Amino acid sequence: VTSALTPASTPARTNFSSDNYAGVHPAVLDALGEASGGHVTAYGDDPWTALATARLSEAFGAAGVFFVFNGTAANVLGISLMLRPYEAVICTEGAHLNVDEGGAAERIVGCKLLTVSAADGKLTPELVSTRLGSRGDEHRVQPRVVAITQATEVGTCYTVDELARLAEFCRANGLLVFMDGARLANAAAFLGCPLADLSVHVDALSFGGTKNGAMGAEALIVMNSALLTTVPFVRKQQMQLASKMRYLAAQFNALLDDDLWLRNARHANAMAHRLADGAAGIPGVDLWQPVESNGVFAALDPALIEPLRRDWPFHIWDPDQHVVRWMAAFDTTKDDVDAFLSAIRALAGAPTS
Amino acid sequence: VTSALTPASTPARTNFSSDNYAGVHPAVLDALGEASGGHVTAYGDDPWTALATARLSEAFGAAGVFFVFNGTAANVLGISLMLRPYEAVICTEGAHLNVDEGGAAERIVGCKLLTVSAADGKLTPELVSTRLGSRGDEHRVQPRVVAITQATEVGTCYTVDELARLAEFCRANGLLVFMDGARLANAAAFLGCPLADLSVHVDALSFGGTKNGAMGAEALIVMNSALLTTVPFVRKQQMQLASKMRYLAAQFNALLDDDLWLRNARHANAMAHRLADGAAGIPGVDLWQPVESNGVFAALDPALIEPLRRDWPFHIWDPDQHVVRWMAAFDTTKDDVDAFLSAIRALAGAPTS
Amino acid sequence: VTSALTPASTPARTNFSSDNYAGVHPAVLDALGEASGGHVTAYGDDPWTALATARLSEAFGAAGVFFVFNGTAANVLGISLMLRPYEAVICTEGAHLNVDEGGAAERIVGCKLLTVSAADGKLTPELVSTRLGSRGDEHRVQPRVVAITQATEVGTCYTVDELARLAEFCRANGLLVFMDGARLANAAAFLGCPLADLSVHVDALSFGGTKNGAMGAEALIVMNSALLTTVPFVRKQQMQLASKMRYLAAQFNALLDDDLWLRNARHANAMAHRLADGAAGIPGVDLWQPVESNGVFAALDPALIEPLRRDWPFHIWDPDQHVVRWMAAFDTTKDDVDAFLSAIRALAGAPTS
Amino acid sequence: VTSALTPASTPARTNFSSDNYAGVHPAVLDALGEASGGHVTAYGDDPWTALATARLSEAFGAAGVFFVFNGTAANVLGISLMLRPYEAVICTEGAHLNVDEGGAAERIVGCKLLTVSAADGKLTPELVSTRLGSRGDEHRVQPRVVAITQATEVGTCYTVDELARLAEFCRANGLLVFMDGARLANAAAFLGCPLADLSVHVDALSFGGTKNGAMGAEALIVMNSALLTTVPFVRKQQMQLASKMRYLAAQFNALLDDDLWLRNARHANAMAHRLADGAAGIPGVDLWQPVESNGVFAALDPALIEPLRRDWPFHIWDPDQHVVRWMAAFDTTKDDVDAFLSAIRALAGAPTS
Repeated sequence: VTSALTPASTPARTNFSSDNYAGVHPAVLDALGEASGGHVTAYGDDPWTALATARLSEAFGAAGVFFVFNGTAANVLGISLMLRPYEAVICTEGAHLNVDEGGAAERIVGCKLLTVSAADGKLTPELVSTRLGSRGDEHRVQPRVVAITQATEVGTCYTVDELARLAEFCRANGLLVFMDGARLANAAAFLGCPLADLSVHVDALSFGGTKNGAMGAEALIVMNSALLTTVPFVRKQQMQLASKMRYLAAQFNALLDDDLWLRNARHANAMAHRLADGAAGIPGVDLWQPVESNGVFAALDPALIEPLRRDWPFHIWDPDQHVVRWMAAFDTTKDDVDAFLSAIRALAGAPTS
Repeated sequence: VTSALTPASTPARTNFSSDNYAGVHPAVLDALGEASGGHVTAYGDDPWTALATARLSEAFGAAGVFFVFNGTAANVLGISLMLRPYEAVICTEGAHLNVDEGGAAERIVGCKLLTVSAADGKLTPELVSTRLGSRGDEHRVQPRVVAITQATEVGTCYTVDELARLAEFCRANGLLVFMDGARLANAAAFLGCPLADLSVHVDALSFGGTKNGAMGAEALIVMNSALLTTVPFVRKQQMQLASKMRYLAAQFNALLDDDLWLRNARHANAMAHRLADGAAGIPGVDLWQPVESNGVFAALDPALIEPLRRDWPFHIWDPDQHVVRWMAAFDTTKDDVDAFLSAIRALAGAPTS
Repeated sequence: VTSALTPASTPARTNFSSDNYAGVHPAVLDALGEASGGHVTAYGDDPWTALATARLSEAFGAAGVFFVFNGTAANVLGISLMLRPYEAVICTEGAHLNVDEGGAAERIVGCKLLTVSAADGKLTPELVSTRLGSRGDEHRVQPRVVAITQATEVGTCYTVDELARLAEFCRANGLLVFMDGARLANAAAFLGCPLADLSVHVDALSFGGTKNGAMGAEALIVMNSALLTTVPFVRKQQMQLASKMRYLAAQFNALLDDDLWLRNARHANAMAHRLADGAAGIPGVDLWQPVESNGVFAALDPALIEPLRRDWPFHIWDPDQHVVRWMAAFDTTKDDVDAFLSAIRALAGAPTS
Repeated sequence: VTSALTPASTPARTNFSSDNYAGVHPAVLDALGEASGGHVTAYGDDPWTALATARLSEAFGAAGVFFVFNGTAANVLGISLMLRPYEAVICTEGAHLNVDEGGAAERIVGCKLLTVSAADGKLTPELVSTRLGSRGDEHRVQPRVVAITQATEVGTCYTVDELARLAEFCRANGLLVFMDGARLANAAAFLGCPLADLSVHVDALSFGGTKNGAMGAEALIVMNSALLTTVPFVRKQQMQLASKMRYLAAQFNALLDDDLWLRNARHANAMAHRLADGAAGIPGVDLWQPVESNGVFAALDPALIEPLRRDWPFHIWDPDQHVVRWMAAFDTTKDDVDAFLSAIRALAGAPTS
């Protein structure tokens, strides 16, 4: 009977579509099992949650840590803490918050997103200042939050200096900073800096576990203690309070053990670099953005795209410019990369390396 | 090092505070591990999700099945599908939707809840009709959805006939029915009927996995096909679209294998009955509601409450009436029940049984 | 041609359905004409608005005054200033905010209304305290605002002492107070006190012009200066910023000249008393609430209701108890009252007075 | 006493800042007085409302007509009728809905606005199609409404053919069309077509009275009868249901009498043309958009702007391009235009004409 019910007899081949196509790291699975004995208080008053909260608070220098189910929720909860009803968020046009969250910012938070175009996915003081013109005008929303993504949606990273400069500008202009850290681990791995070097410049951020080898767990890290009071209530209202919270916390505990989060991120970044390095010389492949995390964004000869996707699914990032996205995950192997590169070379008529 | 990081060296003792104080059933844990190999498409286009969806669709006779993270989300998503901006939900004063969801109905859905008092937690056509007076009056919200809970928040169950009668009334009055099934398994176990006998009377319902031995997974079961179109978009907007969806689905697959959901529910119900039967004769303990699922609601001699809670945490349901709630879970043992009964008897000065 | 376009050749007879069935006081009409010459800055930066704002600020001892179009808007804007997303309002079941605003509190503000039953329409510290039980529980909305109505929806008034006692309780319990003053003029006339004696006990209130002889103008009076910052932005967002603001202000200027507001309110109150006094002795008519403003609420012999409404439209307030509402307006005459009383007497078979 | 209370002893000079700086047309004032006798049913069940509704329904070929207080409200109500929670509106970046409504679309409706850049303020099928790429993707909002403005925010008009072409495209692509007609009268006057030639191409539109000589009254004109059911309830919920509705209706009756609306619009348009014609030859003045309604948009020598605004207030439309906006109103005279032109010429060092 069970064989009929087994959905996949053999693991599917690794592909480069998204880091959330990957499964769960074995250490995370183990941690879930270890967290499973006996009864503990629901909703977070349990030792696993206490431990993960303490460890993340220390790592980030945080005022508070709150677990939620997914990245959209972390973003929405984070900006919710910062906004009055008429206040707005400044972000890039390509921000996940703007394009990939189903309109949650507008409907769940009720705020307008003031977008600026940024090919490399990064905001600067100059770009932010272009959206500050309407301050004090009661007819217009009032900018209050600058939302950035680290690593960005196009695989780039803010340097620590860039973060510091943006943060200084925001403080001087009465703006709070939220950082979408769905791939913060990859940014920290690329930059080679402690997590606290990234968090110190913002008022709140998310720290993504899911794309880093977890099953499904994100942490909202609150740096600005003035924002703390409302979090538990808004998290519950936004349907993000897990009853069996220990299982969200246990995932983070596993990622924190022996810096598994960092090892996973370094590995994924390395695989992306291997892919980019190998693809760089193939005719019809042009890297579109520098590879600063675990994603490769490349403009392809249009004739290559669909044939390549037949066996290797991946996202077309910008159809007009023929830009595609290839993501490496914690479990991507060198062989996976090399097999993919071979497929590209074959289609491009390039010699095998 | 790791020992310092181990939050709980021994499993905590089972208590009767809530069925979500329990951990995860071993078969569910196993299923999570089995789902973990290789890359699959994110967001639900994977074989585990296809399988769980097909099995639940068949079991419920459903038009569509959609997984979400928790029970509040299932309720909010469910009623969201049914309401125009000025339409309202009729429910009991004690409905989870009304009292325990942090105001999500009002803020996330934007709807008013028209409540009626019901000591046994059950709506009737007569009770519903008391809230229909304002129909057609543009100054007032328009009732559109009747939201019920099965099993109810006070441990009672609608009989299939009661459901049928309520459903008939609602259809005749242009009302849709949503059923909060956070403990639907316990209701089906008590009533001894197939799940489809319960779902056939409603437009949408939730089917709770979390309190039934899952780690954290609920299913929104849509019966009325007119409601289907909007679900994927609203689920995403409400921050309930899991990227690694296979792990929500795998939990349901485990619960469906060999009717584990039913065995878990029967066991929890049996433990609640054992507790109720044992407690019934103890001086100072009066059963407040019939035990029709896995919860025991009893009015206690006030002098017993705090001493008993010192070692055995549980919720005070109604402080004014000294009503307490004791919940049994899938992993509650006869020894747990008997130890708890002994503790009650000792405090009550009753002879050991 | 124009005669065909004239909708009403003769004025309709005064009835007792609602004080907003009345037209506009001639002095208000004159003020609109006088405000009409030349160009002035839109949106409130004009001399009429400055004057009305200054006069109302002085009369109420207010921190700020903001004009809006109608009473629902004044209520919604007022509570919007006071609430974080998870905070709730305590009000009576019969509050206009709860029953007659189309669900605006829930959809526009996004807040839950925690209601208490109060036959006389008045909240007390004791009633409010019944809704404070869930403070600090993240699963539940957090009470933050107590919303009262003065005069109440059933024609009663809080005494100044009652207001003071309620306000003291609220301050001591971290609650803000909003007062719906759609008929505040009638309350002030009944109580014989300055407006400032009423406003001093609350954080914000509305002052209704429309039911007092204006064409359509309400003022939000903000007492608590901590609430001021957000008002202009939220008023605009809630679609209540008039471009030709001078015409809202001019209506208030007319009502303030020579205390027209007070004379109108006293007259309406007197007509309600005349009606109540005359009706009190008629068989089948029982006054249901004391007459403390411009409304008479009476329980009628059911056989009288529909025959009487044939010629004299009025609202049935409570169909179960056969309670009806009769409202007097600024332009109700003694003859109107006496004619209505004659009609009641005739139907009741009572001797003419 | 009253002199101290008179805010403006002499009418302020006409300026070109906005058409809502003007007062009320005398015929509208007269109509308000004529509507003022006696008691009529509140909330729109009165003869003035019936008459205005019938006349506007006929003029537009409408399925329904609903009065509201201001233009922002008409826009918000209009799009509210058309959208499910995850659906979005396509509009220009410069749309009033996007920039000048305080974020009401996002907070009150809860929808995302998908904007496109359009210097002339007009959407085309080509521009709309650039925002249709995400259809069917559950991660993204789904475009459902195309919102246009006629006359546009920069004084241009869609020709009837352009409207027809856009409407055809929208119908073919499952999109509804909403038209912001705050200055629809000016567009109809410019185009020389009946109102019905404009309305026939859209699903709903607003018809602005305020900028056309009313005191404050806008009509939502519903063409698509499938949208009708919800209007009364949503209008109330959005705080736009006037109790003394007759005074909104009376304003429209006055504007409809002898086509006052058209005469007012033609006059304002003519004054704008006179201003544009006179300004065209002045050094340092370059018309930026064709004058197709009652506004003149011109790029000025930066040195002229502030000196000119000292005596003649007007808005700077685009600070970067030194574009200013001059609006003519129904009461702008040739002398006003000529005096303003003289002032410009004097500052520009140009010979008097």
